[in-house]
Amino acid sequence: MKKIGTQTIQFDNPPTILETASIVGPKEADGPLAKYFDQCLDDEFWGEKTWEKAESKIIKETVTSLIAKSGIAATDIDFCFAGDLLNQCISSSFGLRELNVPFFGVFGACSTFVESLCLGSVFVESKAAKNVLCATSSHFCSAEKQFRFPLELGNQRPQSSQWTVTGSGAAIVSDSGSGPYITMITPGKIVDMGIKDANNMGAAMAPAALDTLITHFRDTGRKPSYYDAIITGDLGHVGKEILTELAETKGYNIKSNYDDCGVLIFDKDKQDTHSGGSGCACIGTTFSGYFFKQLKDKKLNRILLIATGALTNATTTQQGETIPGIAHAVSIETTLG
Amino acid sequence: MKKIGTQTIQFDNPPTILETASIVGPKEADGPLAKYFDQCLDDEFWGEKTWEKAESKIIKETVTSLIAKSGIAATDIDFCFAGDLLNQCISSSFGLRELNVPFFGVFGACSTFVESLCLGSVFVESKAAKNVLCATSSHFCSAEKQFRFPLELGNQRPQSSQWTVTGSGAAIVSDSGSGPYITMITPGKIVDMGIKDANNMGAAMAPAALDTLITHFRDTGRKPSYYDAIITGDLGHVGKEILTELAETKGYNIKSNYDDCGVLIFDKDKQDTHSGGSGCACIGTTFSGYFFKQLKDKKLNRILLIATGALTNATTTQQGETIPGIAHAVSIETTLG
Repeated sequence: MKKIGTQTIQFDNPPTILETASIVGPKEADGPLAKYFDQCLDDEFWGEKTWEKAESKIIKETVTSLIAKSGIAATDIDFCFAGDLLNQCISSSFGLRELNVPFFGVFGACSTFVESLCLGSVFVESKAAKNVLCATSSHFCSAEKQFRFPLELGNQRPQSSQWTVTGSGAAIVSDSGSGPYITMITPGKIVDMGIKDANNMGAAMAPAALDTLITHFRDTGRKPSYYDAIITGDLGHVGKEILTELAETKGYNIKSNYDDCGVLIFDKDKQDTHSGGSGCACIGTTFSGYFFKQLKDKKLNRILLIATGALTNATTTQQGETIPGIAHAVSIETTLG
Repeated sequence: MKKIGTQTIQFDNPPTILETASIVGPKEADGPLAKYFDQCLDDEFWGEKTWEKAESKIIKETVTSLIAKSGIAATDIDFCFAGDLLNQCISSSFGLRELNVPFFGVFGACSTFVESLCLGSVFVESKAAKNVLCATSSHFCSAEKQFRFPLELGNQRPQSSQWTVTGSGAAIVSDSGSGPYITMITPGKIVDMGIKDANNMGAAMAPAALDTLITHFRDTGRKPSYYDAIITGDLGHVGKEILTELAETKGYNIKSNYDDCGVLIFDKDKQDTHSGGSGCACIGTTFSGYFFKQLKDKKLNRILLIATGALTNATTTQQGETIPGIAHAVSIETTLG
């Protein structure tokens, strides 16, 4: 591999995304992408006593189903990269504690899925691993309880707020396979433009997405039109509009081929999710469920997948801090140039 | 690089730990290692209004001082790997948001420092990076508030409890330099032996340390006597004794060359820290302050550095869950065989 430009890594032997899996909650099961997910749950608890335990079960079952689908023995998975939104990433560590695979805990807030793909693909390309597992989860109820207010309060949500996706997405990245390939990664910097509103994450994260997007184009010499689709993780309706406008001011027109998983996963008019989906599982499930299949079927051949994260917590918000954002990008292509 | 055994990676061109830096709080400044740290603080707030902001400042200033000492321009650092104990790793993300270096958030609880060294060294060896920065922090007051009880309550601490180290340790890992070298890494699996006592982290983490220790020996064919020192991160007095005994039952005698940073950093008799130090910064500062200098001076030539983490949070404890542990190891040597 080699570094090109300021922060992009180009792979000489691009790793393949061998298989993906996804499980989602009931709200996502009512959304427009329902048919693409492996499993849709009827309720948010899935037989568990707490939302945290439910979220752990969701990531555990997603990973179990992924390994079964992949045909790779669990013992042939060299490393697992996983993380989530809960304090101390407990969904991943409790959900995957019986996996018996060396484990790297990752925290990039809602950028965790693509951060894991970045780390995992470097491990595979460098021959540190033949197969790695990348997984993440989020849960509407556990996230609201932890980051905002207990659901029992019945708080009103402003129009700029987003709906944390309940679910888990996971992928196996491998040194052998026929694609789709991770051809490049552009890990992002922390960007803080001073947004303080914890109910407007899209606005907080859009500048980080812009920074990584533009850096990717500058590093690679590619233009937006190179990609069939440019996909962000969970900027939602508000953040999508901001990113589109910001990109245009920088000379990049992404209007025709850009979309956001938070916009795609819910029906804005019918589902009352305001600015759209968010959470680690938003891009995790939408990529693993929908985009991976589009790539396998060659309906899409080149996508730039950019996951954004807000690196904040409830305490920093209460202490009047701004919200730092980050965005990591991977270039995924079905053929090698 | 190549994988040897089940979970160890051996480097062909081992990366150098180019420079380290450490800042500690007042309790650590009264301990036996005080003279080895770059800076000792007089108070836990360091002029900030909250403990969280103080912790962010500590990691920020540690990294700033590290870069200045290293002679490497910040623009020549390709990636930063960092994490901490606070919810959503805010100490790292707020402390390092102005660093302007692509950022990978890492969460391995108290194993974060060595997890970062593992990830960073793979990036350097694979030519994804020339220089990476690995950093972590912890803070007694913010950790007590978040994981146990507010300090204002004046709770009694049982003898098995540990004292979270206030401080930050950071290192630059580079593709060029004359050592000490990271020659191998053995990333660990999650191990949960059913310990539930949040005031006995040493007992919860010792089985994970054992698993990684034995795996490292099996993978490499090395024996405990290969190393001048085997160093764990923060098992403390209780966990150190457990690990020593468990290792012996498995046929590995580590009595003569094994020690723990949590044991070393405080004076058990005079400082009232019960089972010893803990927290991400325990191994972070003890390695960056003390062991790195011993290696540079060739007083130690081969060490196995094992950081352990308890992958738990306050909610899981309240929900009656057990405490999963993890341990990551790096082999650090001053000469190449």
